Amino acid sequence: MSTTTFNVNILGCSSATQSSRHSQSGQVVNFRDKLFMVDCGEGTQGRFRRQGLKFSRLGHIFISHLHGDHFFGLPGLLSTMALHGIGGEVTVHAFEEGLRLLRDWMDFFNREPSFRINYAPVTPGACETVYEDAGLTVSTFPLYHRVPCTGYLFREKPSCRPLRGDMLEFHNVPVSERRAIKEGADFVRPDGIVVPNSALTHPAPAPRSYAYCSDTMFDTRVAEAVEGVTTLYHESTYGDEYLAMARERGHSTARQAAEIARAARAGKLVLGHYSKRYDADGEARLLAEAREVFPDTILADEGMVIKV
Amino acid sequence: MSTTTFNVNILGCSSATQSSRHSQSGQVVNFRDKLFMVDCGEGTQGRFRRQGLKFSRLGHIFISHLHGDHFFGLPGLLSTMALHGIGGEVTVHAFEEGLRLLRDWMDFFNREPSFRINYAPVTPGACETVYEDAGLTVSTFPLYHRVPCTGYLFREKPSCRPLRGDMLEFHNVPVSERRAIKEGADFVRPDGIVVPNSALTHPAPAPRSYAYCSDTMFDTRVAEAVEGVTTLYHESTYGDEYLAMARERGHSTARQAAEIARAARAGKLVLGHYSKRYDADGEARLLAEAREVFPDTILADEGMVIKV
Repeated sequence: MSTTTFNVNILGCSSATQSSRHSQSGQVVNFRDKLFMVDCGEGTQGRFRRQGLKFSRLGHIFISHLHGDHFFGLPGLLSTMALHGIGGEVTVHAFEEGLRLLRDWMDFFNREPSFRINYAPVTPGACETVYEDAGLTVSTFPLYHRVPCTGYLFREKPSCRPLRGDMLEFHNVPVSERRAIKEGADFVRPDGIVVPNSALTHPAPAPRSYAYCSDTMFDTRVAEAVEGVTTLYHESTYGDEYLAMARERGHSTARQAAEIARAARAGKLVLGHYSKRYDADGEARLLAEAREVFPDTILADEGMVIKV
Repeated sequence: MSTTTFNVNILGCSSATQSSRHSQSGQVVNFRDKLFMVDCGEGTQGRFRRQGLKFSRLGHIFISHLHGDHFFGLPGLLSTMALHGIGGEVTVHAFEEGLRLLRDWMDFFNREPSFRINYAPVTPGACETVYEDAGLTVSTFPLYHRVPCTGYLFREKPSCRPLRGDMLEFHNVPVSERRAIKEGADFVRPDGIVVPNSALTHPAPAPRSYAYCSDTMFDTRVAEAVEGVTTLYHESTYGDEYLAMARERGHSTARQAAEIARAARAGKLVLGHYSKRYDADGEARLLAEAREVFPDTILADEGMVIKV
């Protein structure tokens, strides 16, 4: 029943060292044609443009942690937005120290004072709502990396129950009552008979959600934080053979990502943040290892648009 | 006679707004397999790598001015060099304020303390030698842009006169005399006859030079600063039709670049820093306008290697 746009564009899915196959981290969540960027590695602005996305629709940028491969694209992106978006604004959500460094650069390099950059601090280790509108909330949850790191959870708000036209007509429901019925009310007929809401409406579509887990070691608290998520992006830097190194460096294997998806009862798992050591065959192996645990898994790739 | 490597790799030659045709400013001067970067727009590290250049050979980076399209590639490049170049070092030459901003970021983001970044301030408006080794000097000269901007002149040092083996043998010149003769001395034979240096050597090859003029309005002082240069890179943001806008924005037309090349008696002119409004046909027109004034002109393009 959900026809509202809720997509994720993959702009980059390599790990810290750029590879010839992949670009550094960057994604765009498109919810009802409002765009939300998550992480912004170097070169993200070019890939954003090449995927036909519009700077004018990008209002919020969420940064997961302060490593360069998730951050260094910001000055270029914001400068380009300032050049194009006279009178516009954008809000960057990140840890305090990152905002300080970014603001320092933008105060110097951004010569378009009519474009406003808002700096919204994110609290490390917290679960908090950092964005909300009529249809969507974005909240943070902790990830477990070598430095403070936060995940982002995009949650569609529950929508109203669609009315059944035939039943409204049958019971002679006046227009003035319809709003209350959409929101769940029963209808009391003039003769005193109560028509239950379920007889007048279709069930509301289940709200969809998307969780972004950029850099994290395997930790079941992540699964708890994203319990029931429709689509889970979880880093999978390594394959089974580097299990020990994954933990040491604060990363996960593809199989561990799948274990989180299974424990969270996610609808679908998207892998990414591949080590540059993997070629196409290597990535196919990551996928196979994950699917042994969680079959509904796909590999992120630049240019891909994922329906949540 | 000159067989020593002295090349320029074009990594990016667009103006401030990225286009689908070109990347932001960045070049690498290769002198005897030592690499020198000039300007570093976003994404320069990727293009450097894709052209098969080696981070380990890159010792100096020269920044012409503090606009983002010449600067924003530095954090990513330096982070990658730090990851790869344990124990190595690199020197960044730029105006003081740029170094302060860069150092702030690198102190935070560069977690590889074994890689050393040196910060070498460049004086705005000066003509000074900023690098020197046995074979090369790099010096600055002012450009005339909206903000302080410096050009860089790479000058090969005069080389010794190649010896003529046949004449050395004919005059029985002992090995101990040869160094002095290479450096220009005459030879006095045991019988008192003076053999002039010109009879014992070939003329030294003319020293080559490369001048980089990133962003500048038309100003004949630039021609004076690069007088006699072998290869001149001069920005040509616009064609004839935007002559007024070029001056207003501190840029040049292709024809003005050619006038500088002619006035400087340059050997060759390389155009670049094209406005994104020009497609392939537009660039061909820029080239044609320049060639009316200075025939030995070429268009810079990403991936091009220019022999100085």
